[in-house]
Amino acid sequence: MSEVHESRRNRLRERCHAAGSAAALISRPANVRYLAGAAPNGAVLLLGGREDLLVCPGPLDERPSEGRPDDALRVHSLSHAGGDPAVAAADLLVARGGDCLAVEEHHLTVSRHRGIRSVAPRLRLADLGGAVEQARVVKDEEEISCLRIGAEIADQALGELLESILVGRTERHLALELERRLVDHGADGPAFPTSVGTGPNSGRRGHRPTDRRVEEGDFLSVCLGAAYRGYRCEIGRTFVIGTSPADWQIELYDLVFAAQRAGREALAPGVACRDVDRAARQVLGSAGHCEGLPALVGHGVGLEIEEEPQLTPAAMGKLDACVPVTVEPGVHLPGRGGVRIDDTLVVRPEADGGPELLTITTKELLAL
Amino acid sequence: MSEVHESRRNRLRERCHAAGSAAALISRPANVRYLAGAAPNGAVLLLGGREDLLVCPGPLDERPSEGRPDDALRVHSLSHAGGDPAVAAADLLVARGGDCLAVEEHHLTVSRHRGIRSVAPRLRLADLGGAVEQARVVKDEEEISCLRIGAEIADQALGELLESILVGRTERHLALELERRLVDHGADGPAFPTSVGTGPNSGRRGHRPTDRRVEEGDFLSVCLGAAYRGYRCEIGRTFVIGTSPADWQIELYDLVFAAQRAGREALAPGVACRDVDRAARQVLGSAGHCEGLPALVGHGVGLEIEEEPQLTPAAMGKLDACVPVTVEPGVHLPGRGGVRIDDTLVVRPEADGGPELLTITTKELLAL
Repeated sequence: MSEVHESRRNRLRERCHAAGSAAALISRPANVRYLAGAAPNGAVLLLGGREDLLVCPGPLDERPSEGRPDDALRVHSLSHAGGDPAVAAADLLVARGGDCLAVEEHHLTVSRHRGIRSVAPRLRLADLGGAVEQARVVKDEEEISCLRIGAEIADQALGELLESILVGRTERHLALELERRLVDHGADGPAFPTSVGTGPNSGRRGHRPTDRRVEEGDFLSVCLGAAYRGYRCEIGRTFVIGTSPADWQIELYDLVFAAQRAGREALAPGVACRDVDRAARQVLGSAGHCEGLPALVGHGVGLEIEEEPQLTPAAMGKLDACVPVTVEPGVHLPGRGGVRIDDTLVVRPEADGGPELLTITTKELLAL
Repeated sequence: MSEVHESRRNRLRERCHAAGSAAALISRPANVRYLAGAAPNGAVLLLGGREDLLVCPGPLDERPSEGRPDDALRVHSLSHAGGDPAVAAADLLVARGGDCLAVEEHHLTVSRHRGIRSVAPRLRLADLGGAVEQARVVKDEEEISCLRIGAEIADQALGELLESILVGRTERHLALELERRLVDHGADGPAFPTSVGTGPNSGRRGHRPTDRRVEEGDFLSVCLGAAYRGYRCEIGRTFVIGTSPADWQIELYDLVFAAQRAGREALAPGVACRDVDRAARQVLGSAGHCEGLPALVGHGVGLEIEEEPQLTPAAMGKLDACVPVTVEPGVHLPGRGGVRIDDTLVVRPEADGGPELLTITTKELLAL
C-alpha cells in the first residue's frame, strides 16, 4: 500500500506547487489517513517540497491508531507533551527554509492558526481548501473492495438479526446486538452509531436508540454500517412487526421504495448531484409529502461516513464513475413513525452495468 | 434542570460583560450541552445581551441529540440546508444591534471565523478562550451524582466480565461484551471506546482491541467507562490470567499500585495538579521506569472524558473541591506487556473524608 499513499501525496504536492505553495499541512484525520496510511491520534502531515513528515504529539506506539503509517514516510514525535504538532510542523518547515504553507482552514482552529503565526511570523499561510477531500471522492478498486467487504458484513449482521425474535426487545439492545455482529463478522467496528427506531421513532434519520421496546404492529427501521480497514458503508431498512402491515404502512413503504429506486436509477457518471436528489424527492413530493422531507437524499462514503458528494437540492457538481454514495430517502410522520431505505452504491457507467449495489439485503417489505 | 442551565448562562454572561463583550458564541458541543441542556448535532448557542438562542442547522426533531434543550431557551432552526449556524447567529446578532461577539477560537475553524467576518464585517470578534471549560471544572452535586451512577455501572459491567471464562476470547470480543453490559445496566453508552489489552498489549493507554486471544499467563488490562446523562467516568484494572502470576508480574503490579495510591492520596483541594502527577511519577521513576512513562497521570472527567484539569508534569493550577479526576499511572514494557490502574475520584476536603472514590472494583491483583 505504501506506493498508493506516496502517489497520493505526490499528486497533492503537484497541485500545491501549481497553486503557488511549496508545502501543505494536513490536519483533518481522515485526510491524514488517506495520504499517510494511518492517522495516529493528534498527528498532522507536513507535505514538504523534498520530504514528507508525519508529526505526532508523542511516541508513535503510544498513539491509538488504526493502520500503520506507510514506510516511505518519516515520523517525527514531539518530546514535549502538550505541544501542538501543527505548530511544530510549521517550525520545522521554517527551519528548512520554507516560506509558504497551505493549511486546511476548514479544519484548523483559529487558535492553532494563531499558534502557527506566532512561531513562524514570516511564513505565508494559504488555504489548502478541500483539496484532499476532493481527491478522496473517486475511489480506486482497492478502496471500493474495502467498502464492498464492509457492506457484506453489514448485510450479514442485519440478516442474522432478522432471524431472531424482535418483539419486546429495546432499540438500544437491538443496536448493540447489531454492533456485536458487525465485529463478529470482521468489521473494525461500527461505521457510525447504529440507529434502531421502533413505532413513532421509526424512519427518523440518525435516531438514537432509546429504551422503547418493539411492539406488534410497529414499523422498525434500522440503519447500520461496518468500518472495514477504515472504509465506512451504510445500509438502512424498514420492517413491519407482526403478520399483516396496515394499509398506511404499505402505502408509505411503497412510496419510499419508489423514491429510493428513482434515486438509485438516477446514478450515473456525469449526472448532476442535485438531479439524483430531485429524482427521489419528486416521488415523495408528488404524494404530498413536501413537509418534513429529509435535507439530503444521499452522500458520499469512504474514510468518513459522510463525505463529498452531497446529494441535496443545492448541491453543485456531477457524479463520476467509482464514486460510492448512499441513497437514503425517508418519510417520518410525527407520532406515527415512518420509513427509510438506505443503500450504498458505487456509480458505474452504463457499459459496466450501471450503479453497483453494495448492500444487497432485500428491500421487500418484510413482516417479521 | 432548566434553572441550572439558565444560571450557568447568566454567570457566563456576567463574565463576558466584565471582559467587554456583550455576546458570546458557543460552538464546542460539550460547552453547548453544559449551557443549554442539550447539543443537537451542529447547533451553536448565542449568548445575547437580552435573550439566548440555540441555533440549529435544521428542525430540532431531526437533529440527533442527547437530552433536551432547556425550556427557557429559544430555538432557531435554519431553513436553508447547508448553512452554518455560527454564521447565522452572527447575522442575527448584528440585526439586533450587537457590535461585539466572543467566539471559541480553540474550537471554531479558520473558515467559519472568516464566514462570520464576511456576513458581519463590522462585528468585533473577540476570543472567549476556555471560559466555559473553566466553568465546567468544578461540578455540582447533580453532576457528581451522574458520574457516581456511571461509575457504578462500569463497576458492575467489569465485575460480571470477571466471572466469565476469559481464556481464548479476543480483545475485541471482551471489549464488545463490556460495552453491551454497560448499556444493560443503564448507561447511555460507553464513555469512550473500551480498551482491552492482553499479553504484550496489556498496560498500553488507549490500546485498541485486536483479535489477539487471552492466553494463560497473560496480563489482561481493561479500561472502560459509562456515559450517564452525558457524564463520563473511567475505570481501568489489570488482571493476570492463570493460577500464579510470575514474579515480574507481581513486582510490576505492586509498583503501579503504589504509584496509583500515591497519586490518589495526593488529591486534595489546593494541591497543585503537577504535584499529583509527581507523587505517582516518583514511585515509578524510583524503580527505574523513567523511560516510556505516561504523558499524564490523570485528567478531569465530566461531559467529556478528557477535560480540565490535566495531571501532568507541566500542568499549571491547583485542584479544587468537587473536581472529578482520574488517577491512572501505568507501565508498559515493550514486548512483554504491562499494568495500568485507573480510578475516577472526586476531590474532597479532608474534613469531608478526603477524595471520594467512585470506581470501587478491587485493586488487588486478581488471578483469573
